[in-house]
Order: sequence, then C-alpha cells, then structure tokens
Amino acid sequence: MSQSDLPVGQDEANQPSQDANSMVNPWSVADGVDYDFIVEQFGSQRISEQLIERIERIIGEPAHPWIKRGIFFSHRSLEELLDLYERGEPFYLYTGRGPSSEALHLGHMIPFTFSRWLQRVFNVPIVIQLTDDEKFYFKSYLTLEEASRLGFENIKDILACGFDLQKTFVFRNTDYIQYLYPAVCKFSRHVTLNKVISTFGFGPSDHIGKYAFPPIQAAPSFSTCFPHIFKGNEKVHCLIPCAIDQDPYFRMTREIAPSLGWLKPALIHSSFFPALQGPNSKMSASDPTSSIYMTDTPQMISDKIKKYAFSGGGATQEEHRQNGGNCDIDVSFQYLKFFYFDDEDLERIRQEYTSGTMSTSELKTKLIQVLCKFVEGFQQNRASITPEIVQASMEIRNIEFP
Amino acid sequence: MSQSDLPVGQDEANQPSQDANSMVNPWSVADGVDYDFIVEQFGSQRISEQLIERIERIIGEPAHPWIKRGIFFSHRSLEELLDLYERGEPFYLYTGRGPSSEALHLGHMIPFTFSRWLQRVFNVPIVIQLTDDEKFYFKSYLTLEEASRLGFENIKDILACGFDLQKTFVFRNTDYIQYLYPAVCKFSRHVTLNKVISTFGFGPSDHIGKYAFPPIQAAPSFSTCFPHIFKGNEKVHCLIPCAIDQDPYFRMTREIAPSLGWLKPALIHSSFFPALQGPNSKMSASDPTSSIYMTDTPQMISDKIKKYAFSGGGATQEEHRQNGGNCDIDVSFQYLKFFYFDDEDLERIRQEYTSGTMSTSELKTKLIQVLCKFVEGFQQNRASITPEIVQASMEIRNIEFP
Repeated sequence: MSQSDLPVGQDEANQPSQDANSMVNPWSVADGVDYDFIVEQFGSQRISEQLIERIERIIGEPAHPWIKRGIFFSHRSLEELLDLYERGEPFYLYTGRGPSSEALHLGHMIPFTFSRWLQRVFNVPIVIQLTDDEKFYFKSYLTLEEASRLGFENIKDILACGFDLQKTFVFRNTDYIQYLYPAVCKFSRHVTLNKVISTFGFGPSDHIGKYAFPPIQAAPSFSTCFPHIFKGNEKVHCLIPCAIDQDPYFRMTREIAPSLGWLKPALIHSSFFPALQGPNSKMSASDPTSSIYMTDTPQMISDKIKKYAFSGGGATQEEHRQNGGNCDIDVSFQYLKFFYFDDEDLERIRQEYTSGTMSTSELKTKLIQVLCKFVEGFQQNRASITPEIVQASMEIRNIEFP
Repeated sequence: MSQSDLPVGQDEANQPSQDANSMVNPWSVADGVDYDFIVEQFGSQRISEQLIERIERIIGEPAHPWIKRGIFFSHRSLEELLDLYERGEPFYLYTGRGPSSEALHLGHMIPFTFSRWLQRVFNVPIVIQLTDDEKFYFKSYLTLEEASRLGFENIKDILACGFDLQKTFVFRNTDYIQYLYPAVCKFSRHVTLNKVISTFGFGPSDHIGKYAFPPIQAAPSFSTCFPHIFKGNEKVHCLIPCAIDQDPYFRMTREIAPSLGWLKPALIHSSFFPALQGPNSKMSASDPTSSIYMTDTPQMISDKIKKYAFSGGGATQEEHRQNGGNCDIDVSFQYLKFFYFDDEDLERIRQEYTSGTMSTSELKTKLIQVLCKFVEGFQQNRASITPEIVQASMEIRNIEFP
C-alpha cells in the first residue's frame, strides 16, 4: 500500500475526530517519525543484516537497494514466509492504492516499484487493490464515479512500473466487491466497534462507511478472495509491502485471521517518503509544490527542486564550506537515497556534502538529473499502457499459480 | 419485510446492547404493542377509510382483507404513490426476509402474501431481498454459508406464495452485493455512527458488521440497484410492505434519500402477528410451540392450537357461557382475523364467541380447519417449486417494466 497523499490537510472534515489516538495510522503521520519507536510500539521486527543476507541467498542476487538502505526497514513474519518459500510453498503479493488524484507522485512509486521487484525475484503473482470506495468515504469532494475513474487512470501508472501482466491482477473495489464480500462479512463479525475506534480513532460523527471499510482492505490478504488465481486454495500465504502507516489495518488483519482459521499475512514496511519541504512537513495532494509528480516535465522537476527542496546545507556558501551539510535532513540527499542506485557514488556524495566540498546547488543538480531520468523513463512506459491493457489486467481470468 | 423470528430470546449475545433505546426496532418488540402510540411516535399515517376506498377505486376490486381489517394499518407516502400511479407512473415493490430458519411460520407469510396481492392488483414488478449477510451478523450460531443455504430454501417458500415470475426478482445479498454496492457506499457516507446508534441501539462491543448493515437493507429501495429491470431509470418509485418493526430502517432510508437526490420509498406497515401463547408473549424460532410452521402437519396444527393457543374465553365452560369470551386477546380469533376471509362468518363468530354462545373448543376447531386448508394449499404450491425455478427467479435478467 502506498502512503498515498496522506495526511491531507485540506480535507479536515474527513479526518479522524478529535478523540483519535496519537499513534501513526493511515490518516495521520506524526511529524519527525522515530522508526525505532514505531517498531517497538507496533511490535514489528527490524529487517536485520542476517535477514538481508538470507533474502539474497534465496533470490540469488543482491537485495533491492531500498532494503539495503533501510527504506524497507521493518517486517512481520517475513522469516516464516521465507521458510515456507524455501520448502517450495509459494506466496502471493498484495498491495494497493487509494485513487484520490489524477497523477501519482514519487512517494506513490515506492510500494509499486518495490512490489514489482519482489514479483520478479520471487516469481509470484500479485493482486493490486484500488480502493475507490475508501477514497469516496474519506474525501468528501469526490464522487464515487470520479474515484472509480481515477482508479482506472491510476492503474496505468501502476502497470507502468513494469509488472508481469501474466501474474498481475488489478481490481477496483466497486468492480470486485462480489468476490471480497464473504471474507468481508466473516471478518467484520470479528471486529467490534471499540476495536475500530481504538485502531483508527474515528468518532461518533464519522459516517459508517469509514467504520465498515477496514475489513475491505483486510480481505485481499486471504487467498479465498481470488478463486480465479488460487482455485479455492485457502492456505496460500500473502506478503504485503506497504508504508508503515498502513500497518494498523494489517495488524488488525493478523490479529483476527487465526480466529477465522485464516493465515496471517506477512508484511514488509517502508518508511515515509519525505515531502520536498522536508521530513517535518507534510506532502499534500492539494499542494503541487510539496512533491514531484510523475507527470512533471524536466523543467518543473528542476524548478521545484531548486525552489522547494529543503536543504541541510549551511545558510551561506561560506558557512557550508566551513561546517558542511546535514544529509539526514537534506531532502535532496534523501531523494537520492531513494532513487539513485549507485552505492559508491552515493557514498561519495554523502561524504562530500557532509564535509562541505559539495555545494547544495551541485547536490540539487545531481538529483534533478537522476529524477528527470527516472520520471522520463516512467512516462515512456506509461505512454504504452493503453486502456485495453488496463482492462486486461482487471479481467477475472485464469492466472498461473503453481 | 417480515418481522421474521424476532425477538429471539436465545440469541441474547447478538441482541442490541443494554444502551438500546426502548423504541420498537427490528430486534426488540415491546410487549403489548400500542399501535396508535407507534403511529404517533414514528410519525407515520394511519390507513383511513378514505384511503381504502381510493385504493379500491384504483384497482377496481375490494381491498385485501388485511387492509380492511386494520392488519396493514399504517403507511408513509402511499397517497403520493397513488397520485403518481393514477397519472401513469408505475412503481415497484420491495420486500425481503432474513433467512435464519429452515421453515417459515405463519407470521412470515404476512408480508409475502400481501406483496403478492399488491403485485397482482397493481401489476408491478417486485424485488425480494434475502439478507443472508444480516442473519450471519445477528445470529452467532450461523455460518455465512448456512445463512445462504437457508436463503435458497426460503426462496421456495416465498415463491410458493404465488408471485408472478415474469415480474419477480429474488436475490441473496451475497450473490447480488455487486449491484447494491454503489448505492450502499453513497448511502453509508450520509449515515453517522451516532445515527445508527440512536436508531438501532447498538453498543461499543457490537461488531461492525451490524453497523454496516442498514445501508444494505436501504439500497434496494432505489431503482438504480436494478439496472436489468429499470434500465438506468433512477426515478422509479418504490413501495415497501413490511412489519412495523422494520420501519426504523426505512425511516432512515427516507431521511437520507433526498440528500442523495433519490426518491423516498413509500411504506405500508403491518401489525405484529401474535405468538400462539398470546399477544404478550414472543414468537421464538427456538420454540416450535410458539408458532405454526408452514411445514406442520394437520395433526401438529391441531395439537398446537388445542394445547397452546391462548384463550380469551372464560376459565370454565360455565363462566364462558355466562360472561362470554374476549376476542381482542383470544389468539384463535386473532388468527382467524388473519386467515379467514369470510367477513360475514367471521363477524358471526365474533358475536357468538363474545356472547359465550360459541365455546373456545368450537372456535379452535374452526381455526384448525382454516389453517389446515391454508397450510396444505401452501405445501402443495411449495412442492412444485423446484431448485430450477428458484434459480430462474434469481437470474439477473430482463424484466418487463413499462
């Protein structure tokens, strides 16, 4: 799941009510996130060096840079999933997106790019949920029809990440609810109102669509929801790559699964992708200057980064040369950590920027170069995704599964 | 809608929590119902003599005895519906049942028998919802699969009431949710948690399936949910015959419809069908002696009425002859009021029983005769309803609508 465009300040009316708890949840991300604290509070596991080595042994190639660089930093039951995989039991991937905007931004790319990598290295099917119902519930300005239309458009972006169409099933909830519904009913009967309130912090004046939604996001974690892929096999394990803010959904899913005799999905969590204005500001769908969109031109990318990318460098060139820059808070460096895959050169940049040898301007120039290449490559892929390809990916069809 | 098998004492765990309000709602029927009070409290309209005459003028035949005898006693917007009907705008009927038991009892027959009559005299289509999801939510002992199976079986009983299959569409929610879902989402966004709590009295430890359900019962009130019948016409009016305890669902439906630009459904309400043990006792699905089932043999019917039917007669034959019986509380007389359609003879019986000329035993003999004939006729019809006929009634097919 994507961290999508949350939290969205403009849509206060649809935010959880005042009695919301202060935990990280899908709709409110605390400023200045302490990931160690989150791992401890959520009770997930850090991805250790040993685990990374094990993954590399199994897949026979280097782990994705986002794992090695700690961007995917936490997991649940990944070890057990790998045990089973090594014994010949394949799993499937589940990710998704809430379609609330026409264009995706860089942050939205994280779960899809990573899922595509997982699909390739483990050679497994993936199901991708477009929660048009959820976005209709949480964005009061959206009609259901518009959310569904955005869903269709967003699928083009998702497929442009290069998924293997033979092993990829994409669905909008409004098209596929029939297949999710038995699992949604069974799951719902195990979730009390109290539980939803304590997990998501909704209040008494929130509408019941919000309360009803969590089981709909939980359902695709269970292979029964995809008879055309798993042919009735209820015991296929599921791995969910998602931003850490989606964990409450799946923590609840994992909590309830055993009482239904269902398998707990495994999770792999990414950290938040910072807004241009810095890790302590919020990416807002309503503020186009807060992020780079996948539709942006090279000029727009260049302008935005030069103008808005929060700098960890010195206040003056003089000061920067003397004291150096702080890569931990410098957004340009953080973005390179996400999108520049040359480990050695990235380390050189880190050292030079930290020491003050490299200026903020030089760092930004490097980032602009890297992002323009990434975005242009994406745009070329996307141009080749026709509505027919989208339709084909959504077709309820036989999908090969061992 | 049927008053179904409520209230069900055995299933306390699934009853509304202690903070339920004291109103009549789908899960708790106050003892000794005061219908004038209900009409006033609910804000519905009594069915007047003038309205009955108007109905008879429009349909060109006598009104159903249940209207004339005050069994269907209350309505909402029926006058307006008739205005439109007279101007050539047809409507459709919507009723339903929660499938929680294998066999239906006499009380369950009321809405279906009456709906069948409405379908005939107005020559309109009917949609019939089987809420297998609801029964799964409210009966903790039921699996979803079992509720769906019971739904299929119950459709045989429903069709045995003689519906015109050319104009009848029957669906289980688990089969048809895809078509209801857009309306369910839109409706849900207009219902706050507070509203559900104040209407149905659920508590914080109730599961969210219960909270999510009301929009699913509301949805079929809107013609958009049936594209195969109304071909996209969103402005077809709906008439819902139901027991008065279902009114909270549709009061909420009517309240919210205008904010979505949808038409308010019209309603026609029946009073409660009394349990054998009397108007102050409760019909319980778990107590077979509390009602006559449509599967009962003549011997069973005879035994139950002789043994359990609450008598309004004198304590002794002597006393009865002297003071007479009280037809208002005598269950045998009440049942005759429902199922004996000879007005003159019923009036004779009333007078003779009230005066004490007719004994309780004679009254019961008459009722046994009437019910055995009704139940046997039903059983013959039901025997002719094959699974293929059920399937055909559930098929999403073109249904003629002017």
